[in-house]
Amino acid sequence: MVANKTKTAKQAGEKTVEGSNNGKSELGITAKKDPDFSEWYPQVIQKAEMIEYGPVSGCMVIRPYAYSIWESVQSFLDNQFKKSGVQNAYFPMLIPESFLKKEQEHVKGFTPEVAWVTEHGDTKFEERLAIRPTSETIMYDSYKKWIRSYRDLPLRLNQWCNIVRWEFKHPVPFLRTREFLWQEGHTVFATKEEAMAETIEILDIYARAFEELYAVPVLKGRKTDTEKFAGAVYTNSLEIFMPNGRAIQGGTTHLLGQNFAKAFDITFLDKDGKKQYPWQNSWGFSTRSIGIMVAMHGDDKGLVLPPRIAPIQVVIVPIIFSNTPTVNEKILELAKSIKKELKTIRVELDEREEYSPGFKFNYWELKGVPLRIEIGPKDLEKNNIVIVRRDTGVKESIPVSDATIRVIKLLADVQDNLYNKAKKLLNDSIVKAGSLSELKEIIDHGKVAFVPWCGSDECEAKVKDETGAKSLNILFNQPELKSNCFCGCGRKAEKMIYFAKSY
Amino acid sequence: MVANKTKTAKQAGEKTVEGSNNGKSELGITAKKDPDFSEWYPQVIQKAEMIEYGPVSGCMVIRPYAYSIWESVQSFLDNQFKKSGVQNAYFPMLIPESFLKKEQEHVKGFTPEVAWVTEHGDTKFEERLAIRPTSETIMYDSYKKWIRSYRDLPLRLNQWCNIVRWEFKHPVPFLRTREFLWQEGHTVFATKEEAMAETIEILDIYARAFEELYAVPVLKGRKTDTEKFAGAVYTNSLEIFMPNGRAIQGGTTHLLGQNFAKAFDITFLDKDGKKQYPWQNSWGFSTRSIGIMVAMHGDDKGLVLPPRIAPIQVVIVPIIFSNTPTVNEKILELAKSIKKELKTIRVELDEREEYSPGFKFNYWELKGVPLRIEIGPKDLEKNNIVIVRRDTGVKESIPVSDATIRVIKLLADVQDNLYNKAKKLLNDSIVKAGSLSELKEIIDHGKVAFVPWCGSDECEAKVKDETGAKSLNILFNQPELKSNCFCGCGRKAEKMIYFAKSY
Repeated sequence: MVANKTKTAKQAGEKTVEGSNNGKSELGITAKKDPDFSEWYPQVIQKAEMIEYGPVSGCMVIRPYAYSIWESVQSFLDNQFKKSGVQNAYFPMLIPESFLKKEQEHVKGFTPEVAWVTEHGDTKFEERLAIRPTSETIMYDSYKKWIRSYRDLPLRLNQWCNIVRWEFKHPVPFLRTREFLWQEGHTVFATKEEAMAETIEILDIYARAFEELYAVPVLKGRKTDTEKFAGAVYTNSLEIFMPNGRAIQGGTTHLLGQNFAKAFDITFLDKDGKKQYPWQNSWGFSTRSIGIMVAMHGDDKGLVLPPRIAPIQVVIVPIIFSNTPTVNEKILELAKSIKKELKTIRVELDEREEYSPGFKFNYWELKGVPLRIEIGPKDLEKNNIVIVRRDTGVKESIPVSDATIRVIKLLADVQDNLYNKAKKLLNDSIVKAGSLSELKEIIDHGKVAFVPWCGSDECEAKVKDETGAKSLNILFNQPELKSNCFCGCGRKAEKMIYFAKSY
Repeated sequence: MVANKTKTAKQAGEKTVEGSNNGKSELGITAKKDPDFSEWYPQVIQKAEMIEYGPVSGCMVIRPYAYSIWESVQSFLDNQFKKSGVQNAYFPMLIPESFLKKEQEHVKGFTPEVAWVTEHGDTKFEERLAIRPTSETIMYDSYKKWIRSYRDLPLRLNQWCNIVRWEFKHPVPFLRTREFLWQEGHTVFATKEEAMAETIEILDIYARAFEELYAVPVLKGRKTDTEKFAGAVYTNSLEIFMPNGRAIQGGTTHLLGQNFAKAFDITFLDKDGKKQYPWQNSWGFSTRSIGIMVAMHGDDKGLVLPPRIAPIQVVIVPIIFSNTPTVNEKILELAKSIKKELKTIRVELDEREEYSPGFKFNYWELKGVPLRIEIGPKDLEKNNIVIVRRDTGVKESIPVSDATIRVIKLLADVQDNLYNKAKKLLNDSIVKAGSLSELKEIIDHGKVAFVPWCGSDECEAKVKDETGAKSLNILFNQPELKSNCFCGCGRKAEKMIYFAKSY
């Protein structure tokens, strides 16, 4: 074993912003999103008070402004799962090493990344305990005890928890961290058909979270055998292509088949009294999704949040001058009455006296608040307010009496606009290619190559070797193909598949 | 270091019930709550499908039937915290050893119970990482970065998470486990007064969760210096006295004073521009509360759940005989229409054909469902239903048309009755004593001794040495005392204090 210092975030080269002090000093983002994404991203999430780096590299603090987004998404997913018949539970975090070893592919996939608990107080454990990198093995040990007959099926449980995977790659907050939060669903069915149907049902729920809440369009499809989950028969995934030219996996559902049932001796008596192995799935969705949303919509001024998940949907900034106290009072009164009227909406009134309106505009733009309402002396005179959209910067002046109806309409417009913009980017980024050289050019231009593929591991591996790009996934609904494999192997193409540089 | 085998639940002597198989075999509880509480409790929580033992001693599975109770309580607490201005966040679980050592009392209190992460993959960490036994040290490292001026205060954060404390005492599910779930609030104020007020505000919220949701009465008060949280100025607690004659701590709020601020160098500039140390609190409420509720209300038939947290509040059991198919159809029709009508209530219709009504009665009694509705052929004839209370066993026959209004009334009655019964038990269990010998007798009878105390550590220690009982807490509102200390030390009594055997 090699001794290895526990690096702090800074030692590990993570981008710590000095003086991020509640985002109040060095307010602005000093890097352009394009072409300096790798500078821009850590600045935005720190200055907008989404994260703080912790003392252990790869383990970050999720601050309230980001955590509240997670709560919105959790609440949506949790409702959908419950509607579908899934129940929540909680399983122990510490897994004996022997459990991880029970499923051969699984242990190969996860062991290099496991953080091990070896001591308590001054006492050594005889067997190392893994901090869960995923919970198949600990959950299925219990499932074995609970499943006896077809009447116990389906068993569909979910847990919300933290996960630790000690990846060697450079940590990036949200997108790739060593500790993260997620939900993991683990379900057991009597038949393969039911299990397969659930991998689609849940993937659709994940897709709705991305598309309807985060305003992020996804590519739905099947992973190749090379890229599937360790221990699965197949993996379905959502892939997102980010404006920095990198793809990332957004959520996955795995058909585990009977692999784990056999490894953990889970059996049931069917209606005819015959012993059978059941069919299992697992599926997960994590805090990574927050980072994807930030990367997708943010701009050079900071975050741009979709209204459905924005902790603050509207900020009201009174424009106040020190020499007009009676006018100020009336402006504040109006601001308060508008806040009160917008009661179904998450509104913040920024009454802070120590900051100028200009400072506040920048501050709330950095925080990505979808709409800003300005009320100044002239607006007061005309009984108007000004509304400014964060996504387009477009300003409009409207009568106070129209406030509620206009705000509701604009919030819906911002949500749609962010999705449509992202969808256009995705469509423009996908380029068909017929040959390896065309594929290389597309990858070099930071786009997604969409190619006909024979289905062989070798042709897939060639892309990784020669370009560094990985396969994303394979469309569920395939067109009829007449061409040969992009790779020049001479075989007939069987499926269209996406390749891109990715996280 | 002593090698120590990772014991399985069974090896550690935990009470595993064989064949707990979904509670469907060996249905009944085979131990009496009194006097066999230590047999009864593990049987109830397993057979009612609340928990499953995991492979690592002290780390248990929280099954959906118990987890859903936790979700109800979480939702109540979370709403109350948010109303009070607290925000949720998430901090890393792994804490460098050097952090734990920064506050002297704190490290002494927690180090013996810490589970240490020492390796990832095949690589040793240079510094051991603690799995959080509580998060003061990791959170305050960030707080230091965020707090600069009085304008940044108060800072009031909470996190819902898992905790690991490798206690040496015999683990008991919920009541004392090595991994558990909780929330921990960590707040920072400019003044001591604000901090002190919050320790009461939050304790009151905890008390409401116990009294209004779990129907469990509490003793509110101040811990002695001997029993306070490691690193705190003082600890306020809720103490619950369980029917097995043991007290247990139900929730605590700690005034940390400026101890951690000094250890972690957290300072702020006050309105006059002077550098000050802020005042801090921490407070926590855990899944232990579920076990307390089970112990309080359960009986020889199984769980008895207070309606407000019962996952199923009403179960409808159709009484069906195999020789009357057309009657059966009508009974099921009526059962379904009643279920539909009770839409604001959590109702389950037990349509299972493979079990007799008698089996179902036992099954749902074991599960503690507050009300059972029976519908048989005779009820159908009279257009009546039978309602049976789980808490008293009292049956009544009412017209179908009164179902909703009666069910709502009875659920409220069950909730009240459980609380009142528990409250009476508590009142009957508290016995005043004036001397150590009287105190001993009270403790020997498994009751709570309420005694005048001089406030000295020695007199408190004497009780522990001679009886094994610990002090619970000191009433906030003290009567005027004229007697001397119970202990015979000759000093004047200053406070009334509770002593009892406890977890």
